[in-house]
Amino acid sequence: MAITYELIKTCKQTGARLGKVHTPHGSFETPMFMPVGTLATVKTMSPEELEQMGAPIILSNTYHLWLRPGEDIVEEAGGLHSFMNWNGSILTDSGGFQVFSLSDLRQIEEEGVHFRNHISGEKLFLSPEKAMQIQNSLGADIMMAFDECPPYPAEHDYMKKSVERTSRWAERCLEGHQRPHDQGLFGIIQGGEYEDLRRQSARDLTSMDFPGYAIGGLSVGEPKDVMNRVLDFTAPLLPDEKPRYLMGVGSPDSLIDGSMRGIDMFDCVLPTRIARNGTCMTSNGRLVVRNAKFARDFRPIDENCDCHTCRNYSRAYIRHLVKSSETFGFRLTTYHNLYFLLKLMRQVREAIKEDRLGDFREEFFEQYGFNKPNAKNF
Amino acid sequence: MAITYELIKTCKQTGARLGKVHTPHGSFETPMFMPVGTLATVKTMSPEELEQMGAPIILSNTYHLWLRPGEDIVEEAGGLHSFMNWNGSILTDSGGFQVFSLSDLRQIEEEGVHFRNHISGEKLFLSPEKAMQIQNSLGADIMMAFDECPPYPAEHDYMKKSVERTSRWAERCLEGHQRPHDQGLFGIIQGGEYEDLRRQSARDLTSMDFPGYAIGGLSVGEPKDVMNRVLDFTAPLLPDEKPRYLMGVGSPDSLIDGSMRGIDMFDCVLPTRIARNGTCMTSNGRLVVRNAKFARDFRPIDENCDCHTCRNYSRAYIRHLVKSSETFGFRLTTYHNLYFLLKLMRQVREAIKEDRLGDFREEFFEQYGFNKPNAKNF
Ligand SMILES: [Zn+2]
Ligand SMILES: [Zn+2]
Repeated sequence: MAITYELIKTCKQTGARLGKVHTPHGSFETPMFMPVGTLATVKTMSPEELEQMGAPIILSNTYHLWLRPGEDIVEEAGGLHSFMNWNGSILTDSGGFQVFSLSDLRQIEEEGVHFRNHISGEKLFLSPEKAMQIQNSLGADIMMAFDECPPYPAEHDYMKKSVERTSRWAERCLEGHQRPHDQGLFGIIQGGEYEDLRRQSARDLTSMDFPGYAIGGLSVGEPKDVMNRVLDFTAPLLPDEKPRYLMGVGSPDSLIDGSMRGIDMFDCVLPTRIARNGTCMTSNGRLVVRNAKFARDFRPIDENCDCHTCRNYSRAYIRHLVKSSETFGFRLTTYHNLYFLLKLMRQVREAIKEDRLGDFREEFFEQYGFNKPNAKNF
Repeated sequence: MAITYELIKTCKQTGARLGKVHTPHGSFETPMFMPVGTLATVKTMSPEELEQMGAPIILSNTYHLWLRPGEDIVEEAGGLHSFMNWNGSILTDSGGFQVFSLSDLRQIEEEGVHFRNHISGEKLFLSPEKAMQIQNSLGADIMMAFDECPPYPAEHDYMKKSVERTSRWAERCLEGHQRPHDQGLFGIIQGGEYEDLRRQSARDLTSMDFPGYAIGGLSVGEPKDVMNRVLDFTAPLLPDEKPRYLMGVGSPDSLIDGSMRGIDMFDCVLPTRIARNGTCMTSNGRLVVRNAKFARDFRPIDENCDCHTCRNYSRAYIRHLVKSSETFGFRLTTYHNLYFLLKLMRQVREAIKEDRLGDFREEFFEQYGFNKPNAKNF
């Protein structure tokens, strides 16, 4: 098996899992946050910086790499690790999410999805078999099954049909996967906010014995309490001995709340995307470093952070760079934001070890400001 | 004296100078190329990367820093070194070049220059005293006198008046300079292509005993042979025991040709500017990495280069990043181009030691392609 999971400990206070995922490119402790490198690069960062900040695994997007440079070029380079000079672990998504969120004029059939390239307008077709072929060429350690991603909210009738199709597609993904010896394929549980459908999806997929499972269809616009409720009834449907991945989640509160519900892996573009706007996550909440009030503020972005950015650069300097659209400013904010989430996950793992993740949540939420009346999302 | 120069050796074949410049932030061997960090950042690079590539000194622009973030903020941060976290040497220009090249509606008077801010349109005034005050606040190791930069070509009559004004302004700069103990002020020789005016300018300025001299008004559109001819008669007018800086020159051929004529320091935005377009300097000449022919080329940008980019990344990967406008691509091309010029200067110094800079020039020109009929500028 390319991917194995080791459950080390369960938090007595919350049920959160401390574990370890083993991949062909190293092992990492969970719960873990995975930075997103859409086009075979985590925007503005170098592989050395990702390693330095303590990122053992990154995510890359099949849909985007398929369109450019093309998975054949990546394969010819020796796979994604070699192409981008990253020796840690990599997870690729299936392309499904982008097909359903980015493309126009899509037409879903049993065979797959017809749609238009979001860049060139060219007509394309993605199917479970094609998604496997592309991901086998990319050569990531963890691949994702090709699923349908219905919008939120969706009617129960439609969602049931979609869940059943996603299960049939999952079977075809397993059959199409050519490299199970060195690439692990995760199944994706769908079903929206419907408990019966989540149960049906989990039953279908766990019967296929994937080396790991994702929970899809969340973080698509639903309120936080809906996400937490769905996790409450979905996570227990998954086998203890396999890793659980909550797709598209990266706000600090949801990382903690997801961990408390037994999630092991997370990914999100949030920390890198907001960094490009000069917005930083700090231990005292959101800080928009381009604001005028930081023009003469020579403190670090986060006085409680020991990252390379905070040890060496001031808010005043970073504000100057960001205001001037200087690349180095976005490097500094991106580095800090990713470090912040990776450190948060270290703190979560530490709290699980000490059976106090619930207490940690309260302390963190209080300091970050999540308990305030009109708290921001992140 | 903040800045001193040590002449180590003269090339028997060419007369080129091997030397060493001592500054309050370290010493560096000459001839040397200085990367340009206009807004207190060498575009896309970190200070660590500049150090790693072997850059002991960088240039920053007074005009730009005056407009943003403002020299008062830089001073409050503890000066430019502290503001941008750079512990090597820094040279700031006087702002004169930008006033004459970027601004509209400028009006030159004996007192100084009235012009409009190229960003906001606001009316501004720069004088020798103001240029000194700003540069004293920035706190670079080497400052430049405020000079008039006439366009090329300029009439002899106008140029003579301009040279005389620049000499009067140089006196005022010396008087206005408040930190001669830890900042060295260089004078700038003007005079265009006129030997008598270069002679007059050099006589005026060397009589003021600056710790170093720049040759200005070149690389402003004149043919290469005009530049070389001007250097041929101007460099000998300067004292042997002071460093000589040729402003705005960074093409490989001119770096060698300038070194052969006794120049010690160079700066230019060329390597960083062309990197942002995916253009690289290589030992075999210019390489435009975004070209389609490199899509499946897994060789490094320059097979003879041992820089971090060339040791770890392929043309195919860099092309993909540059085509996708991914920051990391511009980091990789920028790093390579700067390394290439810093390495070229190491080779030039080595050739001076061995009294064979003329031979080195022939070999380098042949391999780079400068001897071809329609050779490009770089
Ligand atoms: Zn930080
Ligand atoms: Zn190189």
